[in-house]
Amino acid sequence: MDGHYDQLDFVQENAPERLDVKTKLLAEIDAGTRPHVVIASSSSGIPSSQFISQCTKNPSRILIGHPFNPPHLMPLVEVVPHPETDPAAVAQAMDFYTPLGRNPIHIRQEVPGFVANRLQAAVCSEAYGIVSRGIVSAKDLDACMTPSLGPRWAVTGPLMANAMASGGGSDSFGRSLQHLGPAARKWTEDVRAQAFRVDEESAKALCAGVDEELGALDAQSLERERDKRLVAILGQRLHQGPD
Amino acid sequence: MDGHYDQLDFVQENAPERLDVKTKLLAEIDAGTRPHVVIASSSSGIPSSQFISQCTKNPSRILIGHPFNPPHLMPLVEVVPHPETDPAAVAQAMDFYTPLGRNPIHIRQEVPGFVANRLQAAVCSEAYGIVSRGIVSAKDLDACMTPSLGPRWAVTGPLMANAMASGGGSDSFGRSLQHLGPAARKWTEDVRAQAFRVDEESAKALCAGVDEELGALDAQSLERERDKRLVAILGQRLHQGPD
Repeated sequence: MDGHYDQLDFVQENAPERLDVKTKLLAEIDAGTRPHVVIASSSSGIPSSQFISQCTKNPSRILIGHPFNPPHLMPLVEVVPHPETDPAAVAQAMDFYTPLGRNPIHIRQEVPGFVANRLQAAVCSEAYGIVSRGIVSAKDLDACMTPSLGPRWAVTGPLMANAMASGGGSDSFGRSLQHLGPAARKWTEDVRAQAFRVDEESAKALCAGVDEELGALDAQSLERERDKRLVAILGQRLHQGPD
Repeated sequence: MDGHYDQLDFVQENAPERLDVKTKLLAEIDAGTRPHVVIASSSSGIPSSQFISQCTKNPSRILIGHPFNPPHLMPLVEVVPHPETDPAAVAQAMDFYTPLGRNPIHIRQEVPGFVANRLQAAVCSEAYGIVSRGIVSAKDLDACMTPSLGPRWAVTGPLMANAMASGGGSDSFGRSLQHLGPAARKWTEDVRAQAFRVDEESAKALCAGVDEELGALDAQSLERERDKRLVAILGQRLHQGPD
C-alpha cells in the first residue's frame, strides 16, 4: 500500500521501551486507524521491524519518529523506516515534524541506537573508561566536555568542524584527514584498545565516583536551569547552507 | 627540584606538532629560563615525557598545557604532567590559567589524545562509519548532532547528563546505568563491532561525500559566524556545584 497519506492525522506512540508492550499496542493502533494515517513510534532503540509482526492492516505506514531528550526542547527527531515502510510515509513524517520547529532526519537503515544514541554511546563508553582508569575524576570528565566539544558540536557537527579546522573550501575534509589523520588514528586505536567493559565491579567503582560528586545535586532545580540554557543555545546552530 | 615556582613568568610553547621540533625547542627553553619558570607545551597529542630527553636544567617544571581549538575562545586547557613533573608546577599552571578565564583540567596520566581529543576521536570514528555505510549523508550526520548532543554537552557533561536523565539525587548515575544500561550496551557493542577502519578506499568515499556537501562553503565567513555563536553558548554552561 502506498501513496496518499492523511495530511492531518498522525499518531505518535510514546509507550514504554518494551518489545511486548510495543508489539501489542502497535497492533491495536494499526487496527484502529484508517490505513493512510502515519504511525510513528518514539522508540529510542528498538527498530520498528521488530514490533510490527501483528499489524495486519497497513504496516507500511509505520516507522520510528524518535525525539531526543528533553523532547519538549530538543529539535532532533530521528525518522527511521523499517525495510517495508512506504517512502511516502517517510516523506509525510518529515513534513509533519518540520512545521512544528523540529529537525527531522531521515535515517536510511535500521541500526541499533540509530545515529545520535550511537554517537552518545561512543562518548559515554570512553568517558566511563577514562574515569574508571583514574585519568580524571567524574566532575573533571564533564568539565572537559562543556568548555570544548559541547559548544563546538552545538554550533557545527563533527564533519563540518573537521573541514573548518583545515581551512574550509574544496577538499578541506580530506586535508583534515591527512593532517590530523595519523595522530587521530593513534588516539582512536588506543580508545578501542582500552574499551571499557561494564561488569559489576567496574560499574560499582564508576558509580561511586560519580555519585560522590553528583549525588547531592538537586535535579529539579538543575533541570530548570538546564532547560533555560538549552533554549539559549539552540538558537546558535550554524546551518550548512540552504536546507 | 620542587617547590616555589615563579608567579609571574610562564612559558607557553606553541611550536608545530613534531617530536623533533619540540625536543630541540624545549631543550633551548629549558636552558634559557630560570629553573622555576613553568614551561607548558601546547602539544595536542605528544606527551611531554617524549620530548624532554634533552632538557638538563629542570625537566620537572615541564608539562602539557593543551588549549582547545579555537584557542582564543575555548576555555578548556588540559594540563598533563609527565611522570616526573613536580606537583607544584601543575598547581602553578592551574593557577596561571584560571584568572585568564580558562578552565584548566588536571589530567593525571599521559594517555594518547589526553581527554577531549579521545572523546572527539570516539565520536568522529563512529561518524565516519555511519556516513561510509550510507546510514545518513554527511550533512545529516552533522544535523543529528547540533540539535541534540551538542547542546546537551554544552550545558552538562555526559556523566551529569546521565545522572539527570534518571532524576538526580543519590545513586542517580547508578540507576541510569541500570535503566539504560542494557540498551546502551547493545549500541556500544554494535559501535565497536562496526568500528570504521580508515583505508585509502574508505577515506576517498568518505571525503567525496563530505566534500559534496561542505566543499563549497566559505570557511572565513563561517568562522566569523561560528565564533560569534560560540561566545553566546559558552555563557550557558551549568556548573556542577562550587568549584
